[in-house]
Formats: sequence, C-alpha cells, structure tokens
Amino acid sequence: MPEPVPLGKRLAAEGVGSFFLFACVIGSGIMAANLAAGNEAVALLGNTVATGAILFVLISMLGPISGAHMNPAVSIVAASRGDLPWREAAAFCAVQLVFGILGAWAAHLMFDLPTLQLSVKARQGVGQWTGEAIATFGLILTILGTTRHRPQWVPATVASYITAAYWFTSSTSFANPAITVARSLSDTFAGIAPADVPLFVFAQLLGAAAAAMTAKWLFSED
Amino acid sequence: MPEPVPLGKRLAAEGVGSFFLFACVIGSGIMAANLAAGNEAVALLGNTVATGAILFVLISMLGPISGAHMNPAVSIVAASRGDLPWREAAAFCAVQLVFGILGAWAAHLMFDLPTLQLSVKARQGVGQWTGEAIATFGLILTILGTTRHRPQWVPATVASYITAAYWFTSSTSFANPAITVARSLSDTFAGIAPADVPLFVFAQLLGAAAAAMTAKWLFSED
Amino acid sequence: MPEPVPLGKRLAAEGVGSFFLFACVIGSGIMAANLAAGNEAVALLGNTVATGAILFVLISMLGPISGAHMNPAVSIVAASRGDLPWREAAAFCAVQLVFGILGAWAAHLMFDLPTLQLSVKARQGVGQWTGEAIATFGLILTILGTTRHRPQWVPATVASYITAAYWFTSSTSFANPAITVARSLSDTFAGIAPADVPLFVFAQLLGAAAAAMTAKWLFSED
Amino acid sequence: MPEPVPLGKRLAAEGVGSFFLFACVIGSGIMAANLAAGNEAVALLGNTVATGAILFVLISMLGPISGAHMNPAVSIVAASRGDLPWREAAAFCAVQLVFGILGAWAAHLMFDLPTLQLSVKARQGVGQWTGEAIATFGLILTILGTTRHRPQWVPATVASYITAAYWFTSSTSFANPAITVARSLSDTFAGIAPADVPLFVFAQLLGAAAAAMTAKWLFSED
Repeated sequence: MPEPVPLGKRLAAEGVGSFFLFACVIGSGIMAANLAAGNEAVALLGNTVATGAILFVLISMLGPISGAHMNPAVSIVAASRGDLPWREAAAFCAVQLVFGILGAWAAHLMFDLPTLQLSVKARQGVGQWTGEAIATFGLILTILGTTRHRPQWVPATVASYITAAYWFTSSTSFANPAITVARSLSDTFAGIAPADVPLFVFAQLLGAAAAAMTAKWLFSED
Repeated sequence: MPEPVPLGKRLAAEGVGSFFLFACVIGSGIMAANLAAGNEAVALLGNTVATGAILFVLISMLGPISGAHMNPAVSIVAASRGDLPWREAAAFCAVQLVFGILGAWAAHLMFDLPTLQLSVKARQGVGQWTGEAIATFGLILTILGTTRHRPQWVPATVASYITAAYWFTSSTSFANPAITVARSLSDTFAGIAPADVPLFVFAQLLGAAAAAMTAKWLFSED
Repeated sequence: MPEPVPLGKRLAAEGVGSFFLFACVIGSGIMAANLAAGNEAVALLGNTVATGAILFVLISMLGPISGAHMNPAVSIVAASRGDLPWREAAAFCAVQLVFGILGAWAAHLMFDLPTLQLSVKARQGVGQWTGEAIATFGLILTILGTTRHRPQWVPATVASYITAAYWFTSSTSFANPAITVARSLSDTFAGIAPADVPLFVFAQLLGAAAAAMTAKWLFSED
Repeated sequence: MPEPVPLGKRLAAEGVGSFFLFACVIGSGIMAANLAAGNEAVALLGNTVATGAILFVLISMLGPISGAHMNPAVSIVAASRGDLPWREAAAFCAVQLVFGILGAWAAHLMFDLPTLQLSVKARQGVGQWTGEAIATFGLILTILGTTRHRPQWVPATVASYITAAYWFTSSTSFANPAITVARSLSDTFAGIAPADVPLFVFAQLLGAAAAAMTAKWLFSED
C-alpha cells in the first residue's frame, strides 16, 4: 500500500493534465482546420486521433497521482461517491479550469493567434444538449465501470470512449464543464459561443448524475 | 470465484451496450457523411474509428457483467454451446433489439432528424451476402478463439476485427441481426432497406453456425 | 505446459489466417479505392487500418495454435532457427499460398469482380526492391525481438509494424512471398504485375535472412 | 535480475532504432505527400499513423536492450539523472545521429530521390519554438512518468504522445535534436531548413530540462 499522495502534488497533476489536454483539444483543432482544405471530416479525424492519444498518455501518467480527472464532472462524481472530500474536489475543479485555460492560451501562442478570444460558434438545440447528456453519461459510466472491472485498461477505455463520442454525438462530445468554458475562449475549430456554455454544462451534469446512479446499481457497488 | 450476476443486471448491461453501440454506428455514420464533403472513404474512416473504439469500451466495461454480446448471433451461439440457457438467450436477443432501436432513435434525436425512418439503401447480391457470411464467421471465430486463448484481449480483438471487416467485406460487415434491423430504421449512411434485411440475417446466421463448428475443433474445445 | 498442437490443426490455423489476411489486404484495397474518389492517401489509410487490425486479431487468435505465420518468410526463418521442422515449414508455405489465394478470390467474389485476374500494376526498380528488403528485415526483427522480450505484445507489435511499413517503404511493404503471389492475381489497388513478383520475393528473402542473423546476435539468443 | 547488456549491443539497438524511426518519419512523409493530392491534413494523418506505430514497435523491441532512446534529449536527461554514464550518453547521441541520417538517406533511396539534400522549409517563430519546448517537455514527462508508474505501457504511451503532439504543436513536434538535424537533410514533407535547426534544438533542450526537474518532484523520485 503506497502512502497517500499529498494534495499539492495531486493538484499539480490535475494542472499539468488539464494544460496538456486542453492545449491538445484546441491546438489539434487549429492544426486540423488549417490543413484540411475545407474537408471537415478530415479535420475531425485529426482532432480525434490527437485527443484520444493524449488522453491515453495523461491518464496513464497522472492517474496514479491524482486520478487524472481533468474534468469537474468527474471530480464532482468522485466527491458525491465519497471517493474525494468535497473541499478537495472544489480545488480540483478550480485547478482544472485555470490550467485548462492556460492550455488553451498556449495553443493560441503556438499557432501565432491572439491569446484572448471569444468563440462565435453557436452550439445549441435539443439535439446537441441531448448529445452532451448522453456523452457525459457514457463517459462517467466508462470510468466507473472499467475502474471497477479492468483498472489496468482505464486509460485505454477513456481515450477510446472520447474517440467514439467525438463522432457519434452531434455536439462532438465536450462532456467536461471546464473544457466547455476553455473552448468558449477560443474562436477556432473547437470553439463554442460563451452564451451556449451554460446549457452544455447543465446537460453534462445531468448526464453525469444519471451515470453515477446507474453505475451504483449496475456495477454492484452497494 | 465471484457469484453469478443476476439476470436483471445482465439484461441491463446488454441494453446499455446495445443502446450505445447502435447509437454510435448510426450516429457516427451521420456525422461522417455530414462532414465528409462527398468523400465516402473519409466518411467510412470516421465511422470505423468510432465503431471500433466504442466496441472496445463496451466490451471492457460490460463484458464482466453479461459477456457484452450486443448481438443475437453471439447469444445464439452461446446458447448452442451450452454457455447460456436458451430462455436467457431469447431475453438477451429481445433486449438487444429493443435497446438497439432506442439507440438508433437517440442518434436521430441528437442529429435533429425525424425519429421514425425507413432506409431506402439497397444492399443485396451474392457479393454482399457472401460478405455477411464471411464477416460473421470471422467475428464468431474471433470471439471464441480469443476468449479461449487470450481473454484479457477480447475487447481489443473484437473491436479490431470489426474495424477490419468494415473495409474488407463488400457489405461493410453488419454481422449482427439486431443491428441489421435497427439500421433498416435509419435512412442515413449506415442504413439498409428493410426488404434486404432477411437475406442479410440469413447469411449472418449461416456464417455464425459455421464458425461455431470450426471453433469447436480448431480451438480444441472438445 | 500444454501438449503440442497436432500438425493438422496448425495447418488449419495457417489456412484460416492466410485466407482472412489476404482477403483483408485485397478486399480493403478494393473498398478503399472504390470510395476514395481518387485521393490515394485516403485509400491507403483505409487499407492500412484494416490490415493492421486484422493482423492483430489473427495473431491473437491463431498464434497460440500455429504461431500465426501466414507468411513463408516467417516459416522459413523459423525452420532455419530450428523452431519448426523443415518438412512442416514446407507444408506451412503451401497452405499459406493456397488459402491466401482463396482469400484473394473471396475478396473478388465479395466485390462482384471476376475471380481470375492478373494485375498489370508495375512495381519495380531499385527503390522498391530496397523497400521490400528493408520492410522484411524490420518485420522479422520485430517478430523475433518482441517474441523474446514481450511475448504478450507480439500481435500488437506485428500489426503496428505493418501499419508503419505500408507508409514508410516505397513498395507499401508486401514483406511476404505468398501475399506477393496472391496480389499478382488481383488487378486491384493492392495488385502487382506477375513479372515483378520474383524480384520482390528475392528482396524479401534477402531482408529476412539478414534479420535472422542480426536477431541472433542482438537479442542474445546464443 | 538479467545481467547488464554490453555497450556494443546497446549502441547497436540505438542504431537500428534510429535508422528505422528516422526512415519512417521521413519516408512516410514522402509517401503521404505523394499520395495526398494536396490535402495536407490527410498527409499528416498518414505521417502520424506511421510514426506512432513504428515508435510502439521499436520501443517494445529495443527498450529491453538499450532503453530505445533514439533521441539525444532522452539520453542527456538519462545521464543528468545518473541513469546512464555521461560517456555512454555521448556515444548514444553519436550513434543516434549517424544511423538516423542513414535512415533518412534510406528513405530517399527507397523513393528514388537524390540521397543528399538540404531542406528549404522554413520553420521558425515564437509559436513554433514554444511548440518545440512544450512538445519536448511533454515527451520527457511521459517517458519518466510512465516508466515509473506503468512500465509495461511505455511503448504505447510514448507512441501515443508523439501521435498527439504531431497535431497539437504548431511545429508538428520534432522533440528530438538528432531527428531535427536529419530532417534538415531531407527536402521533403518532414524537412526543416538547416538555418532553423539550432533554435529548434535549443527549445527542445529547454523543454527537456524543465521536464526533468518537474518529474523529480511530481513523480516523487526524491
């Protein structure tokens, strides 16, 4: 039994992970859109491959330290299950948001774009909200189910889940309140207009709550 | 030795799995066709990556509960081998079909399409029927062979098999009677005209039966 | 220690594997070229993804039975190392060739093409021969090296090696005498003119021999 | 505890690995650009898939012999941590550079291009230098973090990291001083003008040093 990792290191792991994850989601979107000559499916392929790959890396590397949440929905579910004190979950969420936004800005810097931006890409409607709820439901279920049954494979299953969800949900599966905010600060391929953020986050939290309840029964955790 | 999972939970696992699998097959087809600007190979790449990834996730997560069949051909083979009572196999098939169709409808809802549709895409001819028989033969052989020799890798082998079969069979490898029916209810990239369903299913069952017999001898199960 | 698998089953495993491998290489090439609207890089991507995926499946499933060679170069190297009697290696090669050609013909059948064909695609020149020698050198080194050091990962490394070699060799890496012959019988994306087969095979065997010698020293097998 | 591998074999492993890695990076770039009909995102996809796949193979196969650095930044970090004598690190770097350049020339030979070339592709500016620093920071962190926590997965995490970094950094992530020099000798898709090499290498070493310090604290190595 290893001794518990101190909170400072766990927060650092969440910060490093969120920085790289968000920089990758936004940066690979910029690269893909720049190169794809208008074929958006090709652009989404590039964006998908990069996002899936970095998730596998970050969860492999940082999971043993902090759990590699990089997502407030995951930290809130962990707190609601008693796996993480609420006070620490709040700190996790703050770090995810701050370092994630730094990651978005790093992507802008790397691609010679203005740091401060606001997206104008509308993402709304029943279809997309349903997409976000289903996407987040599946993500939380994947995390809880494979952590229980096949813990060694969690980095691969989470990466694969997001890989699939980029394509099968109409919203391309944000499934993460912090990344939704960060993407509203980037007027690029991965952006979302700030006005559309609240309902995306609401749908995400709804899906996460439903998944947490389903998992309790389905994975026989009681 | 863990105690057996009660039937209700196993059926729920089949339902959740079929819902996500079918929503992904159809939803990623819609997304891919929407974005691919007419390049069908690019569309099939997106459809393939998403389908392979979700299969890996669902079998990893739900396999320890129900076996994660999500496919009547698999459940019928399991029953014929005595691995699953026939009565339970019938319940599995019913749940796969019902929740799979719900998944198809969820895809329509997410992409703002009418829920109720019938495909008009003709899929027939000796070439495609041969394709379905070979595709299902290979799928069942993959499941039985890797379950016996390398059980830890079953989610990866099944996902990889379908990834390949989307490309090397002329029918893009439905290999699943329930998904064939569900896809007849979607007039999108992944659709199949209802009139073409029976012969697809017949070819699938033929391939599955041949694989079950081959596996018994080849994998030394006797 | 499991008892040895009888020769009949090992030959059957080589037959099933070669049938599916060659059907996949040729079939996915047909599908990809049909759909890619003239973009050959997109076609090669589809061909690559399918080939890599089926290799992972077949080696996972059939490796524990016969070694899943599906390639005379591999069987000859195994015989030269004393891992397989020469007489059995000859039978392996014959089965690989016969069932591989059946796989090519199955691909033609599935895609409604004439069964009997001869390719007219010229593949020759110092660049391509060098490509085949390097490709086969790397393949044999990969098999021998990972079998020794990380046997559980052999299906993934061989699949990944061919995935890479489809792109980094000018010949798209046949690296297999039997598949070279079978591809000469298919006037499709993956074809090779029969007149160009002998020098491809010669280069492959040269690369394989060099790899066998390198491996003996590098992997400390003496 | 296996006995230590003699230096000659370790250098040979670095040579074989660098040869194949650099041949693959440059060769798959040539193939991809040749076939992609001007769609650079499709070309980068092919380049990415090949590079990720060969990294997984080479680290799986050669890691148990030499560590499979194939990158002076990795060897220098290893030396600075006391994991490798400085004298041996210098030999590693020399072999990586020499055999890597041979790999580049082999790619030219395979694709019927003149052996000796100098790239004219400008790669410069704050954005790209930041990209190289971040890319190398992440690479070293990935290597040190997963070697510590999940050693069995190092080949997969390093391959996945580079897969992602090809897309999310503006420089497409060279992250390797030797490959930067070798790519300056290739006037192809993967090239970089010789005048732009020094600042790329400087940024890489900066990122590597920062990662080495971060890892010491974050992964509790003290």
